[in-house]
Amino acid sequence: MAGVVKFEQHASEALRIGKGFSLAKVDPDSTPGYTGSKTDGQQLLAELDDNLAELQEKLFAESRFGGTKRILLVLQAMDTAGKGGIVNHVMAPMDPQGVQFKAFKAPTDEEKSYDFLWRIQKEVPAAGMVGIFDRSHYEDVLIHKVHSWATPAEIKRRYVAINEFESRLSDSGTKIVKVMLYISKDEQKARLLARLDNPAKHWKYSRGDIDERAFWDDYMAAYQAAIDETNTAAAPWHVIPANKKWYARIAVQQLVMGAMSELKLEWPKAEFDVDIERALVEKS
Amino acid sequence: MAGVVKFEQHASEALRIGKGFSLAKVDPDSTPGYTGSKTDGQQLLAELDDNLAELQEKLFAESRFGGTKRILLVLQAMDTAGKGGIVNHVMAPMDPQGVQFKAFKAPTDEEKSYDFLWRIQKEVPAAGMVGIFDRSHYEDVLIHKVHSWATPAEIKRRYVAINEFESRLSDSGTKIVKVMLYISKDEQKARLLARLDNPAKHWKYSRGDIDERAFWDDYMAAYQAAIDETNTAAAPWHVIPANKKWYARIAVQQLVMGAMSELKLEWPKAEFDVDIERALVEKS
Repeated sequence: MAGVVKFEQHASEALRIGKGFSLAKVDPDSTPGYTGSKTDGQQLLAELDDNLAELQEKLFAESRFGGTKRILLVLQAMDTAGKGGIVNHVMAPMDPQGVQFKAFKAPTDEEKSYDFLWRIQKEVPAAGMVGIFDRSHYEDVLIHKVHSWATPAEIKRRYVAINEFESRLSDSGTKIVKVMLYISKDEQKARLLARLDNPAKHWKYSRGDIDERAFWDDYMAAYQAAIDETNTAAAPWHVIPANKKWYARIAVQQLVMGAMSELKLEWPKAEFDVDIERALVEKS
Repeated sequence: MAGVVKFEQHASEALRIGKGFSLAKVDPDSTPGYTGSKTDGQQLLAELDDNLAELQEKLFAESRFGGTKRILLVLQAMDTAGKGGIVNHVMAPMDPQGVQFKAFKAPTDEEKSYDFLWRIQKEVPAAGMVGIFDRSHYEDVLIHKVHSWATPAEIKRRYVAINEFESRLSDSGTKIVKVMLYISKDEQKARLLARLDNPAKHWKYSRGDIDERAFWDDYMAAYQAAIDETNTAAAPWHVIPANKKWYARIAVQQLVMGAMSELKLEWPKAEFDVDIERALVEKS
Protein backbone atom coordinates (compact mmCIF):
# COMPACT_ATOMS: atom_id res chain seq x y z
CA MET A 1 0.00 0.00 0.00
CA ALA A 2 3.14 2.20 -0.02
CA GLY A 3 2.57 4.26 -3.15
CA VAL A 4 -1.21 4.10 -3.25
CA VAL A 5 -3.20 7.31 -2.78
CA LYS A 6 -5.69 6.79 0.05
CA PHE A 7 -8.75 8.74 1.09
CA GLU A 8 -7.86 11.98 2.93
CA GLN A 9 -11.00 11.82 4.98
CA HIS A 10 -13.10 8.82 5.96
CA ALA A 11 -15.51 8.24 3.07
CA SER A 12 -18.35 7.85 5.53
CA GLU A 13 -17.71 11.37 6.85
CA ALA A 14 -17.16 12.87 3.43
CA LEU A 15 -20.32 11.35 2.00
CA ARG A 16 -22.74 11.14 4.92
CA ILE A 17 -25.76 13.39 4.73
CA GLY A 18 -25.73 16.27 7.20
CA LYS A 19 -28.35 18.75 8.38
CA GLY A 20 -29.69 20.97 5.59
CA PHE A 21 -28.40 18.64 2.90
CA SER A 22 -29.31 19.67 -0.63
CA LEU A 23 -28.98 17.16 -3.44
CA ALA A 24 -28.98 20.00 -5.95
CA LYS A 25 -25.74 21.30 -4.45
CA VAL A 26 -23.85 18.02 -4.92
CA ASP A 27 -21.44 18.12 -7.85
CA PRO A 28 -21.76 14.76 -9.63
CA ASP A 29 -18.25 15.18 -11.04
CA SER A 30 -16.65 15.65 -7.65
CA THR A 31 -14.66 13.09 -5.64
CA PRO A 32 -15.28 13.95 -1.96
CA GLY A 33 -12.50 12.91 0.37
CA TYR A 34 -10.24 11.75 -2.43
CA THR A 35 -7.58 13.75 -4.26
CA GLY A 36 -6.07 10.94 -6.33
CA SER A 37 -6.45 10.42 -10.07
CA LYS A 38 -8.45 7.73 -11.86
CA THR A 39 -5.35 5.54 -12.02
CA ASP A 40 -4.75 6.07 -8.30
CA GLY A 41 -8.34 5.11 -7.59
CA GLN A 42 -8.20 1.94 -9.67
CA GLN A 43 -5.01 0.96 -7.89
CA LEU A 44 -6.60 1.60 -4.51
CA LEU A 45 -9.63 -0.48 -5.45
CA ALA A 46 -7.46 -3.45 -6.39
CA GLU A 47 -5.14 -3.12 -3.39
CA LEU A 48 -7.99 -3.17 -0.89
CA ASP A 49 -9.64 -6.29 -2.29
CA ASP A 50 -7.71 -8.55 0.09
CA ASN A 51 -8.65 -6.45 3.13
CA LEU A 52 -12.29 -6.53 2.10
CA ALA A 53 -12.15 -10.29 1.57
CA GLU A 54 -10.61 -10.79 5.02
CA LEU A 55 -13.19 -8.61 6.75
CA GLN A 56 -15.99 -10.46 5.01
CA GLU A 57 -14.55 -13.85 5.98
CA LYS A 58 -14.29 -12.71 9.60
CA LEU A 59 -17.92 -11.59 9.55
CA PHE A 60 -18.97 -14.96 8.17
CA ALA A 61 -16.71 -16.88 10.55
CA GLU A 62 -18.11 -15.09 13.61
CA SER A 63 -21.63 -16.11 12.65
CA ARG A 64 -20.61 -19.80 12.64
CA PHE A 65 -19.93 -19.37 16.35
CA GLY A 66 -23.06 -17.51 17.31
CA GLY A 67 -22.32 -14.01 16.00
CA THR A 68 -25.33 -12.03 14.79
CA LYS A 69 -23.59 -9.17 13.02
CA ARG A 70 -24.41 -8.53 9.39
CA ILE A 71 -24.18 -5.84 6.72
CA LEU A 72 -26.87 -4.47 4.45
CA LEU A 73 -25.82 -2.31 1.52
CA VAL A 74 -28.76 -0.54 -0.13
CA LEU A 75 -28.04 0.85 -3.60
CA GLN A 76 -30.35 3.35 -5.24
CA ALA A 77 -29.76 5.33 -8.41
CA MET A 78 -31.17 6.52 -11.71
CA ASP A 79 -30.67 4.18 -14.70
CA THR A 80 -27.10 3.90 -16.04
CA ALA A 81 -25.61 5.26 -12.80
CA GLY A 82 -23.45 2.17 -12.49
CA LYS A 83 -25.07 0.04 -9.79
CA GLY A 84 -24.23 -3.13 -11.66
CA GLY A 85 -20.54 -2.37 -12.01
CA ILE A 86 -20.33 -1.45 -8.34
CA VAL A 87 -21.99 -4.64 -7.22
CA ASN A 88 -19.56 -6.62 -9.39
CA HIS A 89 -16.53 -4.88 -7.96
CA VAL A 90 -17.58 -4.98 -4.35
CA MET A 91 -18.66 -8.61 -4.49
CA ALA A 92 -15.81 -9.96 -6.61
CA PRO A 93 -13.33 -10.50 -3.75
CA MET A 94 -15.98 -11.83 -1.35
CA ASP A 95 -16.88 -15.44 -0.74
CA PRO A 96 -20.23 -15.97 -2.52
CA GLN A 97 -21.28 -18.11 0.41
CA GLY A 98 -21.28 -14.99 2.56
CA VAL A 99 -23.16 -12.68 0.21
CA GLN A 100 -26.91 -12.34 -0.28
CA PHE A 101 -27.49 -10.32 -3.41
CA LYS A 102 -30.99 -9.29 -4.39
CA ALA A 103 -32.06 -7.17 -7.35
CA PHE A 104 -35.58 -5.87 -6.82
CA LYS A 105 -37.54 -5.60 -10.06
CA ALA A 106 -41.08 -4.38 -10.59
CA PRO A 107 -43.20 -6.29 -8.06
CA THR A 108 -45.26 -9.28 -9.17
CA ASP A 109 -49.02 -9.34 -8.70
CA GLU A 110 -48.58 -11.49 -5.60
CA GLU A 111 -46.03 -9.08 -4.14
CA LYS A 112 -48.33 -6.15 -4.85
CA SER A 113 -51.10 -7.83 -2.86
CA TYR A 114 -49.05 -7.36 0.34
CA ASP A 115 -47.69 -4.27 2.05
CA PHE A 116 -44.58 -2.95 0.27
CA LEU A 117 -42.14 -4.29 2.86
CA TRP A 118 -43.38 -7.87 2.59
CA ARG A 119 -41.05 -8.87 -0.24
CA ILE A 120 -38.19 -6.83 1.22
CA GLN A 121 -38.26 -8.41 4.68
CA LYS A 122 -37.81 -11.87 3.20
CA GLU A 123 -34.48 -10.82 1.69
CA VAL A 124 -32.72 -9.25 4.68
CA PRO A 125 -29.26 -10.70 5.35
CA ALA A 126 -28.84 -13.65 7.72
CA ALA A 127 -26.22 -13.52 10.48
CA GLY A 128 -22.72 -13.22 9.05
CA MET A 129 -23.89 -12.19 5.62
CA VAL A 130 -23.30 -9.17 3.47
CA GLY A 131 -26.70 -8.33 2.00
CA ILE A 132 -26.81 -6.19 -1.12
CA PHE A 133 -30.04 -4.63 -2.37
CA ASP A 134 -29.89 -3.46 -5.99
CA ARG A 135 -32.89 -1.14 -5.72
CA SER A 136 -35.02 -1.64 -2.63
CA HIS A 137 -38.03 -0.54 -0.60
CA TYR A 138 -37.04 3.01 -1.58
CA GLU A 139 -38.59 2.47 -5.00
CA ASP A 140 -41.91 2.57 -3.14
CA VAL A 141 -41.29 6.18 -2.10
CA LEU A 142 -39.46 7.22 -5.28
CA ILE A 143 -41.14 6.00 -8.47
CA HIS A 144 -44.44 5.79 -6.57
CA LYS A 145 -44.15 9.44 -5.58
CA VAL A 146 -42.97 10.59 -9.02
CA HIS A 147 -45.90 8.94 -10.79
CA SER A 148 -48.42 9.48 -7.98
CA TRP A 149 -49.00 5.74 -7.67
CA ALA A 150 -49.51 6.41 -3.97
CA THR A 151 -51.11 9.34 -2.16
CA PRO A 152 -48.96 11.78 -0.18
CA ALA A 153 -50.40 10.32 3.03
CA GLU A 154 -49.44 6.81 1.94
CA ILE A 155 -45.91 7.93 1.01
CA LYS A 156 -45.66 9.48 4.46
CA ARG A 157 -46.80 6.23 6.07
CA ARG A 158 -44.08 4.42 4.13
CA TYR A 159 -41.31 6.73 5.36
CA VAL A 160 -42.37 5.89 8.92
CA ALA A 161 -42.59 2.18 8.15
CA ILE A 162 -39.12 2.25 6.54
CA ASN A 163 -37.59 3.95 9.55
CA GLU A 164 -39.13 1.41 11.92
CA PHE A 165 -38.08 -1.48 9.70
CA GLU A 166 -34.48 -0.26 9.42
CA SER A 167 -34.31 0.52 13.11
CA ARG A 168 -35.36 -3.03 13.90
CA LEU A 169 -32.73 -4.41 11.51
CA SER A 170 -30.12 -2.25 13.17
CA ASP A 171 -31.17 -3.31 16.67
CA SER A 172 -30.79 -6.96 15.72
CA GLY A 173 -27.19 -6.58 14.56
CA THR A 174 -27.38 -5.21 11.01
CA LYS A 175 -25.05 -2.43 9.93
CA ILE A 176 -26.98 -0.59 7.22
CA VAL A 177 -25.20 1.39 4.50
CA LYS A 178 -27.57 3.34 2.26
CA VAL A 179 -26.11 4.73 -0.92
CA MET A 180 -27.52 6.93 -3.64
CA LEU A 181 -25.29 7.07 -6.72
CA TYR A 182 -25.68 10.54 -8.13
CA ILE A 183 -25.12 11.18 -11.82
CA SER A 184 -26.11 14.24 -13.84
CA LYS A 185 -28.82 14.20 -16.46
CA ASP A 186 -26.22 14.94 -19.14
CA GLU A 187 -24.07 12.04 -18.01
CA GLN A 188 -27.07 9.74 -18.29
CA LYS A 189 -27.65 10.96 -21.83
CA ALA A 190 -24.04 10.20 -22.73
CA ARG A 191 -24.32 6.72 -21.26
CA LEU A 192 -27.58 5.96 -23.06
CA LEU A 193 -25.98 7.06 -26.34
CA ALA A 194 -22.97 4.87 -25.62
CA ARG A 195 -25.34 1.91 -25.17
CA LEU A 196 -26.91 2.64 -28.53
CA ASP A 197 -23.48 2.82 -30.15
CA ASN A 198 -22.55 -0.66 -28.92
CA PRO A 199 -24.54 -3.63 -30.29
CA ALA A 200 -23.39 -5.69 -27.29
CA LYS A 201 -25.28 -3.25 -25.07
CA HIS A 202 -28.50 -2.93 -27.06
CA TRP A 203 -30.19 -5.51 -24.86
CA LYS A 204 -29.86 -3.11 -21.92
CA TYR A 205 -31.67 -0.32 -23.72
CA SER A 206 -35.39 0.31 -23.65
CA ARG A 207 -37.62 3.18 -24.68
CA GLY A 208 -38.78 3.37 -21.08
CA ASP A 209 -35.36 4.82 -20.18
CA ILE A 210 -36.22 7.96 -22.16
CA ASP A 211 -39.72 8.16 -20.73
CA GLU A 212 -38.34 8.25 -17.18
CA ARG A 213 -35.77 10.93 -18.12
CA ALA A 214 -38.66 13.32 -18.64
CA PHE A 215 -39.32 13.04 -14.89
CA TRP A 216 -35.71 13.74 -13.88
CA ASP A 217 -36.48 16.75 -11.69
CA ASP A 218 -39.35 14.91 -10.01
CA TYR A 219 -37.01 12.02 -9.24
CA MET A 220 -34.46 14.37 -7.73
CA ALA A 221 -37.20 15.91 -5.57
CA ALA A 222 -38.36 12.43 -4.51
CA TYR A 223 -34.76 11.47 -3.59
CA GLN A 224 -34.37 14.69 -1.62
CA ALA A 225 -37.60 13.99 0.27
CA ALA A 226 -36.74 10.32 0.91
CA ILE A 227 -33.28 11.23 2.14
CA ASP A 228 -34.70 13.94 4.42
CA GLU A 229 -37.29 11.58 5.88
CA THR A 230 -35.17 8.45 6.31
CA ASN A 231 -31.66 9.68 7.11
CA THR A 232 -31.48 8.17 10.59
CA ALA A 233 -28.60 7.41 12.91
CA ALA A 234 -29.34 3.70 12.54
CA ALA A 235 -29.40 3.87 8.76
CA PRO A 236 -27.70 6.97 7.40
CA TRP A 237 -27.72 7.95 3.74
CA HIS A 238 -24.64 8.61 1.63
CA VAL A 239 -24.82 10.41 -1.69
CA ILE A 240 -21.94 9.41 -3.95
CA PRO A 241 -21.13 11.55 -6.96
CA ALA A 242 -21.04 8.98 -9.74
CA ASN A 243 -20.21 10.71 -13.00
CA LYS A 244 -16.75 9.25 -12.44
CA LYS A 245 -17.34 5.52 -12.22
CA TRP A 246 -13.94 4.81 -10.71
CA TYR A 247 -14.69 7.17 -7.83
CA ALA A 248 -18.11 5.67 -7.12
CA ARG A 249 -16.49 2.23 -6.91
CA ILE A 250 -13.81 3.17 -4.40
CA ALA A 251 -16.32 5.21 -2.41
CA VAL A 252 -18.68 2.23 -2.01
CA GLN A 253 -15.75 -0.05 -1.22
CA GLN A 254 -14.67 2.39 1.51
CA LEU A 255 -18.16 2.59 2.96
CA VAL A 256 -18.56 -1.19 3.11
CA MET A 257 -15.10 -1.65 4.63
CA GLY A 258 -15.80 1.14 7.09
CA ALA A 259 -19.04 -0.49 8.18
CA MET A 260 -17.26 -3.80 8.65
CA SER A 261 -14.46 -2.18 10.63
CA GLU A 262 -17.00 -0.62 12.98
CA LEU A 263 -18.28 -4.12 13.74
CA LYS A 264 -14.90 -4.89 15.38
CA LEU A 265 -14.70 -8.35 13.88
CA GLU A 266 -12.39 -11.00 15.31
CA TRP A 267 -11.43 -14.49 14.22
CA PRO A 268 -13.30 -16.97 16.41
CA LYS A 269 -11.02 -18.51 19.02
CA ALA A 270 -10.39 -22.23 18.60
CA GLU A 271 -12.62 -24.26 20.90
CA PHE A 272 -10.20 -27.17 20.64
CA ASP A 273 -6.60 -27.84 21.63
CA VAL A 274 -4.59 -27.26 18.46
CA ASP A 275 -1.80 -29.67 19.44
CA ILE A 276 -4.19 -32.50 20.18
CA GLU A 277 -5.98 -32.01 16.87
CA ARG A 278 -2.68 -31.79 15.01
CA ALA A 279 -1.60 -35.13 16.46
CA LEU A 280 -4.95 -36.69 15.50
CA VAL A 281 -4.69 -35.43 11.93
CA GLU A 282 -1.10 -36.64 11.69
CA LYS A 283 -2.04 -40.20 12.49
CA SER A 284 -5.31 -40.21 10.51
CA MET B 1 -3.30 -13.80 -25.10
CA ALA B 2 -0.08 -13.86 -27.17
CA GLY B 3 2.31 -15.33 -24.63
CA VAL B 4 -0.19 -17.25 -22.53
CA VAL B 5 0.03 -21.03 -22.43
CA LYS B 6 -3.37 -22.46 -23.38
CA PHE B 7 -4.82 -25.92 -23.01
CA GLU B 8 -3.41 -28.38 -25.55
CA GLN B 9 -6.62 -30.34 -25.60
CA HIS B 10 -10.15 -29.21 -24.80
CA ALA B 11 -10.53 -29.58 -21.06
CA SER B 12 -13.89 -31.25 -21.56
CA GLU B 13 -12.21 -34.00 -23.59
CA ALA B 14 -9.22 -34.31 -21.29
CA LEU B 15 -11.37 -34.59 -18.19
CA ARG B 16 -14.58 -36.24 -19.32
CA ILE B 17 -15.22 -39.71 -17.99
CA GLY B 18 -14.92 -42.47 -20.57
CA LYS B 19 -15.86 -46.14 -20.61
CA GLY B 20 -14.06 -48.21 -18.00
CA PHE B 21 -13.10 -45.14 -16.00
CA SER B 22 -11.28 -45.87 -12.78
CA LEU B 23 -10.96 -43.16 -10.16
CA ALA B 24 -8.09 -45.06 -8.58
CA LYS B 25 -6.05 -44.58 -11.75
CA VAL B 26 -6.38 -40.79 -11.75
CA ASP B 27 -3.22 -39.02 -10.59
CA PRO B 28 -4.36 -36.16 -8.33
CA ASP B 29 -1.10 -34.32 -9.07
CA SER B 30 -1.56 -34.41 -12.83
CA THR B 31 -2.73 -31.56 -15.09
CA PRO B 32 -4.58 -33.25 -17.97
CA GLY B 33 -4.57 -31.27 -21.20
CA TYR B 34 -2.27 -28.59 -19.84
CA THR B 35 1.53 -28.44 -20.05
CA GLY B 36 2.04 -24.95 -18.61
CA SER B 37 3.45 -24.10 -15.20
CA LYS B 38 1.61 -22.69 -12.19
CA THR B 39 2.51 -19.16 -13.30
CA ASP B 40 1.22 -19.91 -16.79
CA GLY B 41 -2.00 -21.23 -15.34
CA GLN B 42 -2.56 -18.21 -13.13
CA GLN B 43 -1.98 -15.94 -16.10
CA LEU B 44 -4.41 -17.94 -18.21
CA LEU B 45 -7.05 -17.74 -15.48
CA ALA B 46 -6.78 -13.96 -15.29
CA GLU B 47 -6.65 -13.48 -19.07
CA LEU B 48 -9.84 -15.43 -19.65
CA ASP B 49 -11.90 -13.55 -17.09
CA ASP B 50 -13.13 -11.06 -19.68
CA ASN B 51 -14.17 -13.83 -22.08
CA LEU B 52 -16.04 -15.58 -19.31
CA ALA B 53 -17.74 -12.34 -18.29
CA GLU B 54 -18.83 -11.70 -21.88
CA LEU B 55 -20.21 -15.20 -22.36
CA GLN B 56 -22.15 -14.92 -19.12
CA GLU B 57 -23.58 -11.54 -20.10
CA LYS B 58 -24.67 -12.97 -23.45
CA LEU B 59 -26.39 -15.86 -21.71
CA PHE B 60 -28.22 -13.46 -19.41
CA ALA B 61 -29.06 -11.05 -22.25
CA GLU B 62 -30.57 -13.82 -24.39
CA SER B 63 -32.93 -14.76 -21.58
CA ARG B 64 -34.27 -11.19 -21.44
CA PHE B 65 -35.54 -11.80 -24.98
CA GLY B 66 -37.07 -15.21 -24.45
CA GLY B 67 -33.98 -17.42 -24.39
CA THR B 68 -34.20 -20.50 -22.14
CA LYS B 69 -30.56 -21.56 -22.07
CA ARG B 70 -28.84 -21.90 -18.73
CA ILE B 71 -25.82 -23.50 -17.09
CA LEU B 72 -25.63 -25.72 -14.02
CA LEU B 73 -22.23 -26.39 -12.51
CA VAL B 74 -22.31 -29.17 -9.92
CA LEU B 75 -19.26 -29.30 -7.64
CA GLN B 76 -18.52 -32.33 -5.52
CA ALA B 77 -15.40 -33.07 -3.52
CA MET B 78 -13.93 -34.25 -0.26
CA ASP B 79 -13.34 -31.55 2.39
CA THR B 80 -10.47 -29.13 1.72
CA ALA B 81 -10.43 -29.98 -2.00
CA GLY B 82 -10.88 -26.30 -2.84
CA LYS B 83 -14.52 -25.94 -3.88
CA GLY B 84 -14.76 -22.56 -2.21
CA GLY B 85 -11.76 -21.08 -3.97
CA ILE B 86 -13.02 -22.35 -7.29
CA VAL B 87 -16.46 -20.86 -6.82
CA ASN B 88 -14.84 -17.52 -5.93
CA HIS B 89 -12.64 -17.51 -8.99
CA VAL B 90 -15.27 -18.63 -11.45
CA MET B 91 -17.90 -16.24 -10.13
CA ALA B 92 -15.68 -13.19 -9.61
CA PRO B 93 -15.86 -11.92 -13.20
CA MET B 94 -19.55 -12.70 -13.58
CA ASP B 95 -22.45 -10.34 -12.99
CA PRO B 96 -24.01 -11.44 -9.66
CA GLN B 97 -27.41 -10.78 -11.19
CA GLY B 98 -26.80 -13.72 -13.53
CA VAL B 99 -25.53 -16.22 -11.00
CA GLN B 100 -27.52 -18.48 -8.68
CA PHE B 101 -25.15 -19.91 -6.13
CA LYS B 102 -26.34 -22.52 -3.66
CA ALA B 103 -24.34 -24.31 -0.99
CA PHE B 104 -26.18 -27.41 0.17
CA LYS B 105 -25.61 -28.15 3.85
CA ALA B 106 -26.95 -31.02 5.93
CA PRO B 107 -30.70 -31.06 5.25
CA THR B 108 -33.11 -29.55 7.77
CA ASP B 109 -35.83 -31.66 9.35
CA GLU B 110 -38.34 -30.20 6.92
CA GLU B 111 -36.12 -31.02 3.94
CA LYS B 112 -35.64 -34.55 5.22
CA SER B 113 -39.39 -35.04 5.30
CA TYR B 114 -39.47 -34.86 1.49
CA ASP B 115 -37.79 -36.91 -1.20
CA PHE B 116 -34.12 -36.00 -1.55
CA LEU B 117 -34.62 -34.02 -4.78
CA TRP B 118 -37.26 -31.71 -3.25
CA ARG B 119 -34.82 -29.13 -1.94
CA ILE B 120 -32.62 -29.46 -5.02
CA GLN B 121 -35.33 -28.81 -7.59
CA LYS B 122 -36.16 -25.49 -5.96
CA GLU B 123 -32.63 -24.24 -6.65
CA VAL B 124 -32.18 -25.07 -10.34
CA PRO B 125 -31.10 -22.09 -12.44
CA ALA B 126 -33.69 -19.87 -14.11
CA ALA B 127 -33.35 -19.01 -17.81
CA GLY B 128 -30.16 -17.08 -18.52
CA MET B 129 -28.57 -17.96 -15.20
CA VAL B 130 -25.39 -19.75 -14.25
CA GLY B 131 -26.37 -22.05 -11.39
CA ILE B 132 -23.62 -23.31 -9.12
CA PHE B 133 -24.21 -26.13 -6.66
CA ASP B 134 -21.59 -26.39 -3.92
CA ARG B 135 -22.41 -29.98 -2.98
CA SER B 136 -25.66 -31.28 -4.37
CA HIS B 137 -28.06 -34.19 -4.70
CA TYR B 138 -24.97 -36.37 -5.01
CA GLU B 139 -24.49 -36.20 -1.27
CA ASP B 140 -27.56 -38.44 -1.09
CA VAL B 141 -25.71 -41.22 -2.91
CA LEU B 142 -22.29 -40.52 -1.40
CA ILE B 143 -22.39 -39.91 2.34
CA HIS B 144 -25.64 -41.89 2.51
CA LYS B 145 -23.95 -44.87 0.89
CA VAL B 146 -20.78 -44.57 2.95
CA HIS B 147 -22.67 -44.53 6.24
CA SER B 148 -25.47 -46.84 5.10
CA TRP B 149 -28.06 -44.17 5.84
CA ALA B 150 -29.96 -45.63 2.89
CA THR B 151 -30.34 -49.22 1.70
CA PRO B 152 -28.63 -50.36 -1.50
CA ALA B 153 -32.05 -50.53 -3.18
CA GLU B 154 -32.78 -46.94 -2.14
CA ILE B 155 -29.40 -45.75 -3.41
CA LYS B 156 -30.18 -47.45 -6.71
CA ARG B 157 -33.55 -45.71 -6.88
CA ARG B 158 -31.78 -42.42 -6.33
CA TYR B 159 -29.33 -42.97 -9.21
CA VAL B 160 -32.34 -43.48 -11.49
CA ALA B 161 -34.12 -40.43 -10.07
CA ILE B 162 -30.99 -38.31 -10.56
CA ASN B 163 -30.64 -39.37 -14.18
CA GLU B 164 -34.27 -38.56 -14.89
CA PHE B 165 -34.02 -35.23 -13.09
CA GLU B 166 -30.87 -34.20 -14.93
CA SER B 167 -32.25 -35.38 -18.26
CA ARG B 168 -35.31 -33.19 -17.73
CA LEU B 169 -33.12 -30.22 -16.87
CA SER B 170 -31.09 -30.83 -19.99
CA ASP B 171 -34.19 -31.13 -22.18
CA SER B 172 -35.44 -27.79 -20.93
CA GLY B 173 -32.29 -25.92 -21.91
CA THR B 174 -29.81 -26.52 -19.10
CA LYS B 175 -26.19 -27.33 -19.92
CA ILE B 176 -25.01 -29.42 -16.97
CA VAL B 177 -21.35 -29.58 -15.99
CA LYS B 178 -20.64 -32.08 -13.22
CA VAL B 179 -17.26 -31.86 -11.56
CA MET B 180 -15.54 -33.95 -8.95
CA LEU B 181 -12.41 -32.33 -7.56
CA TYR B 182 -10.00 -35.14 -6.81
CA ILE B 183 -7.37 -34.71 -4.10
CA SER B 184 -5.27 -37.39 -2.46
CA LYS B 185 -5.70 -38.41 1.15
CA ASP B 186 -2.19 -37.11 1.89
CA GLU B 187 -2.98 -33.77 0.34
CA GLN B 188 -6.05 -33.48 2.55
CA LYS B 189 -3.92 -34.20 5.59
CA ALA B 190 -1.50 -31.43 4.59
CA ARG B 191 -4.37 -28.99 4.12
CA LEU B 192 -5.96 -29.86 7.47
CA LEU B 193 -2.60 -29.31 9.18
CA ALA B 194 -2.25 -25.98 7.38
CA ARG B 195 -5.64 -24.95 8.78
CA LEU B 196 -4.50 -25.84 12.27
CA ASP B 197 -1.33 -23.80 11.78
CA ASN B 198 -3.29 -20.66 10.89
CA PRO B 199 -5.50 -19.10 13.60
CA ALA B 200 -7.45 -17.29 10.86
CA LYS B 201 -8.51 -20.71 9.56
CA HIS B 202 -9.38 -22.41 12.85
CA TRP B 203 -13.06 -21.62 12.35
CA LYS B 204 -13.05 -23.90 9.31
CA TYR B 205 -11.75 -26.86 11.24
CA SER B 206 -13.86 -29.45 12.99
CA ARG B 207 -13.20 -32.85 14.52
CA GLY B 208 -15.70 -34.28 12.08
CA ASP B 209 -13.16 -33.73 9.30
CA ILE B 210 -10.96 -36.40 10.86
CA ASP B 211 -13.86 -38.76 11.47
CA GLU B 212 -14.77 -38.70 7.77
CA ARG B 213 -11.14 -39.29 6.74
CA ALA B 214 -11.44 -42.75 8.25
CA PHE B 215 -13.97 -43.54 5.51
CA TRP B 216 -11.77 -42.27 2.67
CA ASP B 217 -11.76 -45.54 0.72
CA ASP B 218 -15.52 -45.90 1.13
CA TYR B 219 -15.99 -42.40 -0.22
CA MET B 220 -13.83 -43.18 -3.24
CA ALA B 221 -15.89 -46.31 -3.87
CA ALA B 222 -19.09 -44.29 -3.54
CA TYR B 223 -17.78 -41.69 -5.99
CA GLN B 224 -16.78 -44.43 -8.42
CA ALA B 225 -20.26 -45.96 -8.21
CA ALA B 226 -22.04 -42.61 -8.53
CA ILE B 227 -19.96 -41.66 -11.53
CA ASP B 228 -20.56 -45.05 -13.16
CA GLU B 229 -24.31 -44.80 -12.62
CA THR B 230 -24.87 -41.15 -13.52
CA ASN B 231 -22.33 -40.36 -16.24
CA THR B 232 -24.87 -39.64 -18.97
CA ALA B 233 -24.63 -37.83 -22.30
CA ALA B 234 -26.96 -35.15 -20.95
CA ALA B 235 -24.94 -34.66 -17.78
CA PRO B 236 -21.41 -36.00 -18.08
CA TRP B 237 -18.96 -36.19 -15.19
CA HIS B 238 -15.50 -34.66 -15.15
CA VAL B 239 -12.88 -35.66 -12.61
CA ILE B 240 -10.39 -32.86 -12.04
CA PRO B 241 -7.10 -33.64 -10.33
CA ALA B 242 -7.01 -31.01 -7.60
CA ASN B 243 -3.81 -31.41 -5.61
CA LYS B 244 -2.65 -28.40 -7.63
CA LYS B 245 -5.20 -25.72 -6.85
CA TRP B 246 -4.16 -23.53 -9.77
CA TYR B 247 -4.86 -26.37 -12.19
CA ALA B 248 -8.29 -27.15 -10.75
CA ARG B 249 -9.24 -23.50 -11.15
CA ILE B 250 -8.30 -23.21 -14.81
CA ALA B 251 -9.86 -26.60 -15.52
CA VAL B 252 -13.24 -25.55 -14.10
CA GLN B 253 -13.00 -22.21 -15.88
CA GLN B 254 -12.36 -24.07 -19.16
CA LEU B 255 -15.30 -26.41 -18.57
CA VAL B 256 -17.72 -23.58 -17.82
CA MET B 257 -16.51 -21.56 -20.81
CA GLY B 258 -16.71 -24.64 -23.00
CA ALA B 259 -20.29 -25.30 -21.93
CA MET B 260 -21.21 -21.69 -22.66
CA SER B 261 -19.52 -21.83 -26.07
CA GLU B 262 -21.55 -24.91 -26.96
CA LEU B 263 -24.70 -22.89 -26.32
CA LYS B 264 -23.78 -20.69 -29.32
CA LEU B 265 -24.78 -17.51 -27.56
CA GLU B 266 -25.46 -14.32 -29.52
CA TRP B 267 -26.21 -10.76 -28.49
CA PRO B 268 -29.94 -10.16 -28.91
CA LYS B 269 -30.65 -8.13 -32.02
CA ALA B 270 -32.08 -4.65 -31.37
CA GLU B 271 -35.85 -4.63 -31.75
CA PHE B 272 -35.73 -0.86 -32.31
CA ASP B 273 -34.27 1.47 -34.91
CA VAL B 274 -30.99 2.66 -33.43
CA ASP B 275 -31.01 5.97 -35.30
CA ILE B 276 -34.52 6.84 -34.17
CA GLU B 277 -33.67 6.05 -30.53
CA ARG B 278 -30.44 8.02 -30.73
CA ALA B 279 -32.35 11.09 -31.94
CA LEU B 280 -34.88 10.67 -29.12
CA VAL B 281 -32.14 10.42 -26.50
CA GLU B 282 -30.35 13.45 -27.95
CA LYS B 283 -33.35 15.68 -27.51
CA SER B 284 -34.46 14.21 -24.16
